[in-house]
Amino acid sequence: MKLLVATRSTGKMSEIREILGVVPGLELLDLDDAGIGPSPAEDDLEPYDTFEENARSKAEYFHRLSGLPTVADDSGLEVDALGGAPGVRSKRFAPGDDLDGLERDLANNRHLVERLADTAEEERTARYVCVAAFVEGASIGDRHALLEPGADTTIFFRGEAAALVIEVPRGNGGFGYDPHMLDPDRGRTFAEMSPEEKNAKSHRGKAFRALATVLADGMEARA
Amino acid sequence: MKLLVATRSTGKMSEIREILGVVPGLELLDLDDAGIGPSPAEDDLEPYDTFEENARSKAEYFHRLSGLPTVADDSGLEVDALGGAPGVRSKRFAPGDDLDGLERDLANNRHLVERLADTAEEERTARYVCVAAFVEGASIGDRHALLEPGADTTIFFRGEAAALVIEVPRGNGGFGYDPHMLDPDRGRTFAEMSPEEKNAKSHRGKAFRALATVLADGMEARA
Repeated sequence: MKLLVATRSTGKMSEIREILGVVPGLELLDLDDAGIGPSPAEDDLEPYDTFEENARSKAEYFHRLSGLPTVADDSGLEVDALGGAPGVRSKRFAPGDDLDGLERDLANNRHLVERLADTAEEERTARYVCVAAFVEGASIGDRHALLEPGADTTIFFRGEAAALVIEVPRGNGGFGYDPHMLDPDRGRTFAEMSPEEKNAKSHRGKAFRALATVLADGMEARA
Repeated sequence: MKLLVATRSTGKMSEIREILGVVPGLELLDLDDAGIGPSPAEDDLEPYDTFEENARSKAEYFHRLSGLPTVADDSGLEVDALGGAPGVRSKRFAPGDDLDGLERDLANNRHLVERLADTAEEERTARYVCVAAFVEGASIGDRHALLEPGADTTIFFRGEAAALVIEVPRGNGGFGYDPHMLDPDRGRTFAEMSPEEKNAKSHRGKAFRALATVLADGMEARA
């Protein structure tokens, strides 16, 4: 079964390949593999207030373009002391529309630390959230189909990972807010973990492992 | 595998039994079967702005109480001309806190028709939405487990059914807004369909059939 993974983030794609790569018979395509050009920008497809709506918006858009079963995710950071912010705005938390890549990550991380300057360390509780939306509507005749063709049905896989926001960044792995997100169980930030460790603990790992289980079961049951 | 269906609505439960009843080896329990008393009221567990959050809130609450794999749904009606209202407030759309049962349905339906009095017939487009949330965290050692124990993972199944809101109610089947919700493909309201027809077309049917497929695949793959 072919599955389009609708992201342009190389960090995300690498994590997702690691997890979904174990599903026998699953062929993963990214947007380049599927011959889908650079527009629209990912940001234009995720204007909504919930991870679910943004993930579905992207999955449905690229499913319509490709005709393939498609998964897209939206993810972010919810900080309790900030009333759940930055949430779905995590990628654009710091001001500055022209920022991109590592510069954007750095600005976001600095902004996060500034916003929490007056919050006691033990109250800097937060969670990483990832929602993967799976749509499959056009796969008429596909013996692996989980969903009914054209049935307006979406399956969402939501994973969460609790963390404490720390002031001084630690570690060089991962991306985004990882150097400031301390896993309270391991005493390490997500940027201090190996890719395998991060996938085992992370919001994205949890969401995509549930998807992997469902896809693997579906293909085994129909084999 | 035991599955707790966390609802007190007999109308919902009957529809859900019809769909999930086909999964081999699945034993469905309602809240009474699981020995769970009448409090808290279902309304208190669904204060959120999205179907997903409400469904998860109920599923997690009753999962914690029962220790069983649990599914809960939240559903409602989104009317385009009302900016998506009543949405997650569908059950409590009409004023009147003391209304219940059929009286509540009637008041909601009248309120809906009144709010659309100035909207042209062809602009009364709407959709029924159902989100079923599945949580399973405690099933350590359960060979049917889809999710990792204690992994903060939820799977959501979202089904939608397009409809036109009509002024004069038609049909005696179903419940809620069904007599005013016209399926544009069949020219019949959801209250004019047999239970089997309604399940084939409805938002709840779509969401729970996707769940049924995933559960059946999971049990077959692990048999």
